[in-house]
Amino acid sequence: MTARFQTFDDLASPSQGTERIPLLRAELLRRGLDGFVVPRADEHQSEYVPPSADRLVWLTGFTGSAGTAVILRDDAALVVDGRYTLQAAHQVDTSLLTVVPMAETTAEAWIEAHLGQGRVLGYDPWLHTAKGAEALRKAVERVGSSLYPVETNPLDAVWSDRPAPPRGAVALHPEDLAGEPTGKKLERLRAKLAHDRVDGLVISDPHNLAWLFNLRGADIAHTPVALGYGIVPSEGRPVLLLDPDKVTNDVADVLGRVADITSPDRLPAELKRLAVGQGRIRLDSATGAEALKGQLREIGLDADLGPDPLTAMKAVKNATEIAGAREAHRRDGAAVTRFLHWLDRETIAGEPTEISAVEALEHFRQETGALRDVSFPTISGSGPNGAIVHYRVTRQTDRALQAGELFLVDSGAQYVDGTTDITRTVAVGEPTDEMRDRFTRVLKGHIAIARAVFPKGTSGAQIDGFARRPLWEAGLDFDHGTGHGIGSYLSVHEGPQRISKLGTATLEAGMILSNEPGYYKTGAYGIRIENLILLEPREIPGGERPMLGFETLTLAPIDRKLIEPRLLDAEERAWLDDYHARVAHELAGLVDAGTVDWLANATRPLS
Amino acid sequence: MTARFQTFDDLASPSQGTERIPLLRAELLRRGLDGFVVPRADEHQSEYVPPSADRLVWLTGFTGSAGTAVILRDDAALVVDGRYTLQAAHQVDTSLLTVVPMAETTAEAWIEAHLGQGRVLGYDPWLHTAKGAEALRKAVERVGSSLYPVETNPLDAVWSDRPAPPRGAVALHPEDLAGEPTGKKLERLRAKLAHDRVDGLVISDPHNLAWLFNLRGADIAHTPVALGYGIVPSEGRPVLLLDPDKVTNDVADVLGRVADITSPDRLPAELKRLAVGQGRIRLDSATGAEALKGQLREIGLDADLGPDPLTAMKAVKNATEIAGAREAHRRDGAAVTRFLHWLDRETIAGEPTEISAVEALEHFRQETGALRDVSFPTISGSGPNGAIVHYRVTRQTDRALQAGELFLVDSGAQYVDGTTDITRTVAVGEPTDEMRDRFTRVLKGHIAIARAVFPKGTSGAQIDGFARRPLWEAGLDFDHGTGHGIGSYLSVHEGPQRISKLGTATLEAGMILSNEPGYYKTGAYGIRIENLILLEPREIPGGERPMLGFETLTLAPIDRKLIEPRLLDAEERAWLDDYHARVAHELAGLVDAGTVDWLANATRPLS
Repeated sequence: MTARFQTFDDLASPSQGTERIPLLRAELLRRGLDGFVVPRADEHQSEYVPPSADRLVWLTGFTGSAGTAVILRDDAALVVDGRYTLQAAHQVDTSLLTVVPMAETTAEAWIEAHLGQGRVLGYDPWLHTAKGAEALRKAVERVGSSLYPVETNPLDAVWSDRPAPPRGAVALHPEDLAGEPTGKKLERLRAKLAHDRVDGLVISDPHNLAWLFNLRGADIAHTPVALGYGIVPSEGRPVLLLDPDKVTNDVADVLGRVADITSPDRLPAELKRLAVGQGRIRLDSATGAEALKGQLREIGLDADLGPDPLTAMKAVKNATEIAGAREAHRRDGAAVTRFLHWLDRETIAGEPTEISAVEALEHFRQETGALRDVSFPTISGSGPNGAIVHYRVTRQTDRALQAGELFLVDSGAQYVDGTTDITRTVAVGEPTDEMRDRFTRVLKGHIAIARAVFPKGTSGAQIDGFARRPLWEAGLDFDHGTGHGIGSYLSVHEGPQRISKLGTATLEAGMILSNEPGYYKTGAYGIRIENLILLEPREIPGGERPMLGFETLTLAPIDRKLIEPRLLDAEERAWLDDYHARVAHELAGLVDAGTVDWLANATRPLS
Repeated sequence: MTARFQTFDDLASPSQGTERIPLLRAELLRRGLDGFVVPRADEHQSEYVPPSADRLVWLTGFTGSAGTAVILRDDAALVVDGRYTLQAAHQVDTSLLTVVPMAETTAEAWIEAHLGQGRVLGYDPWLHTAKGAEALRKAVERVGSSLYPVETNPLDAVWSDRPAPPRGAVALHPEDLAGEPTGKKLERLRAKLAHDRVDGLVISDPHNLAWLFNLRGADIAHTPVALGYGIVPSEGRPVLLLDPDKVTNDVADVLGRVADITSPDRLPAELKRLAVGQGRIRLDSATGAEALKGQLREIGLDADLGPDPLTAMKAVKNATEIAGAREAHRRDGAAVTRFLHWLDRETIAGEPTEISAVEALEHFRQETGALRDVSFPTISGSGPNGAIVHYRVTRQTDRALQAGELFLVDSGAQYVDGTTDITRTVAVGEPTDEMRDRFTRVLKGHIAIARAVFPKGTSGAQIDGFARRPLWEAGLDFDHGTGHGIGSYLSVHEGPQRISKLGTATLEAGMILSNEPGYYKTGAYGIRIENLILLEPREIPGGERPMLGFETLTLAPIDRKLIEPRLLDAEERAWLDDYHARVAHELAGLVDAGTVDWLANATRPLS
């Protein structure tokens, strides 16, 4: 069994920075720049970027999904958030780069403290939002220096082996999967633009582009988007800007019915063409590059920075997408359950390791015949590795699953009818009382979210505490959100909804979220229980308000060995038994006979 | 028994608008303005304003604490939030003013829809924040008109009987009440200004001014602030700008040790004097007027809009303030308990009304000998009036307390050692099963907050759901926040902390909040149970994180007649019995013998 969609090699090394930072510095000197900002970002501010845009990895060796390097003449820093401070210190040449925790010092604060007066700091306006560039500018001007937008990125000039930009084929996402034709989506979008009193929208987020035009791409690993742009004027035909090499004639014929298709380098020209009589154009404040704002300004358009309405529209799944998600979760649940059965046998008979577990899990998913990709590189952490929230196993870190330890596996799949994301934590051999106590508290939090009912208008932050309370009562907590939104054969992380301290967006029926409380004991073990949940209207007899509740979509057993039943109340026990009965019932026809027997035992009632 | 600090007259009538809106229109015509914006605001954007600044009431008759009138030549609107739509429709002349619910149409949206092109809309830059003025400007310019900042308010020109600005005497708030000398507070403030890299602070919030300089005033009913400004440069003496008529020589001598004292009209001059070598001055984005930003700009200073650091500093009470709060709550709890005893007797023997209840409650507070003011006009609502969240009883609306109804009384006191705020709901005669069910659910939510433990860093939004869950489970909810911050002999509403959907501020040890879930059945009854709670560190055996929990400060019995014990679990019953035992114990020496007996019965254990 080998993995097709993931590798276990170290992707980078600190020596990259040792060699390449001086190359960049020489280039900056040639251009008269005193420094340059290298964010972990592409032109679309995506969470995942193509290799051709992974400048931060190339320059420094740091592979985290967020971070900013600031390279000055005699000084340089890599500013990262709390998740990545340890990882960054291992991955970069710390004799050249100071790793700076963002909670203490933001990139802007570091610049203020180190840039000095009368300097010119360069930045690439395609890699920063308007707001981000403004914060940089303020910091630089505060110390009497100036911020300079480069025309071409100086790093690219010294990146000799830079991969070509991706040219993944664009595919149609047919209506029996998308559930709503582009024409209807456009109507709804235009009503929102009219309500916001703007004359058009520039789409800078490839996920929104894919959703609106019912297309999918292959430019980025694990996320089926096509990099490109869109323009939707309040009247007239929209324009879809995609590299023509990515679009076959057949696909172009279909897309051409709703939009003009042209190359991304025509963006300024197309904006200009549409500008006649158009004053204010919405530019997504989250993904719209400062350079796009500049293009709008140059042709006399007023960029209205705000949320792209498509983000909120895409978050609410329609009946077809919901039916697809249920089907995808049955399929995926069967694969995960076969994997858990395999794992159970293997930990007794064989010698599974973190990597062989990843390979086996992908193998069972491949056997569904429907796997398009994993939705992110599997997190496969045994023992102490399970406590590293963003762990990615490599040949160097791989370790065998050992009796007395916990094994945490967080994975997901891309199927054309749905994107999945599931975490299970299993005991190898006998768990300790402490492990069972912690696991059961995490489970209580998970059940509290799964069972929550709340009125329309409630935000994710307002229910976040439900997931944490059983841990809080013991003086414990976990340092990540309780839940994130998820796409429909799109990104595994999608906004605006989330269940977390930062979850200010209102929860709406049709949204899909993860429900993933956890507990991590550094150097010992990690626990996380993650199911995807669908928001749906909920009738309460005698109730006065329109209420919402969750349907759990994910179907796979939760390790009974780790549950301490005395810590569960009657309603929690009933939820778990009902859930397990549903898992056994729904997956029975989808797994082999041996797994059916194993599953019957794994899902038997608690008492 | 008469109330000294509150009245029951109708403060305004719709006929005011009938007469006065035409007067304002004539003045606008004289000045060449096509319209004018009248917000419910003074120069400090306070929640409570002096009568001389209550322009919205004078012009329209609307007495709510938030709202904006827009007066155009042939059209006018009063934009109010959901709390006030019904009240506004009763209070204003709707033939002249359209009442517009803010949730549907903001003032800016109404202006965009009604102003038209080529018009000049006036506004008073002292009555809008910089951000508020910017939003207005955008709306006006979007329709091709212009926003004009008036030098003098045209409404004041036609307000013939305008009261004089308040000149309440300034008093010192001595260190045995304040707990920290101004010098130390200044040191801490300057460290924060240095951290934020600003060169000084303009204090526009009178509450922050009072807290920093350990002074209290008498300019506004129910809130002991002195209207004025402060300037704190990062180096050198601060300047305190207060009307000299308000400051006696004795007080000036003490304040003069830490600050230069001068008249508020010297503000531009003082800013200019301090401007030498000072570049960026923090201006509170929440309370700093657009006009202040303009003054800073005129003398070449860069206004750094952001939170006044004093707001967060003031929110965390020191040991002296906490000791004072405990003492104030014992005193106030004794008065409230005597009132509840009186009410119990009176509903059997006499004929209490909403007004006589307010008078009796204030009487018992006056008898403490320490009452400086009520902290807000008492909400005294029987039967259907209890369902009006912001109800204020008048001679016209007053009604008798009747058997079979609920009576809700929300009140508070200002004592020099602490500000209180308490709501109790009592059954008059026998409550229905539904009332008991609803009351017990509200109580369960109240107890969930009182018992909550959570790690440092938790926001108020994250625990808001705890208070609502028992109602949500029955399809019910309430339409206000669960808790607000409260001052120390200052405002009864204080930020940044709150427990609500909007509670993004982190909760910190030393903050005081209200805990006030409720339930309202329109036309029938209202329920609210409110105690003040103090955030304090909490040790949890075996815990890993620094945790916080609440100490309940408010001491008064909760009506046992309204509790359905079967709906409470063992821990909730224990909390209630413990709380009642504490109330009986702490108040025993502070109330008369008759009340001691009554209290013993009112606080006996549930089972």
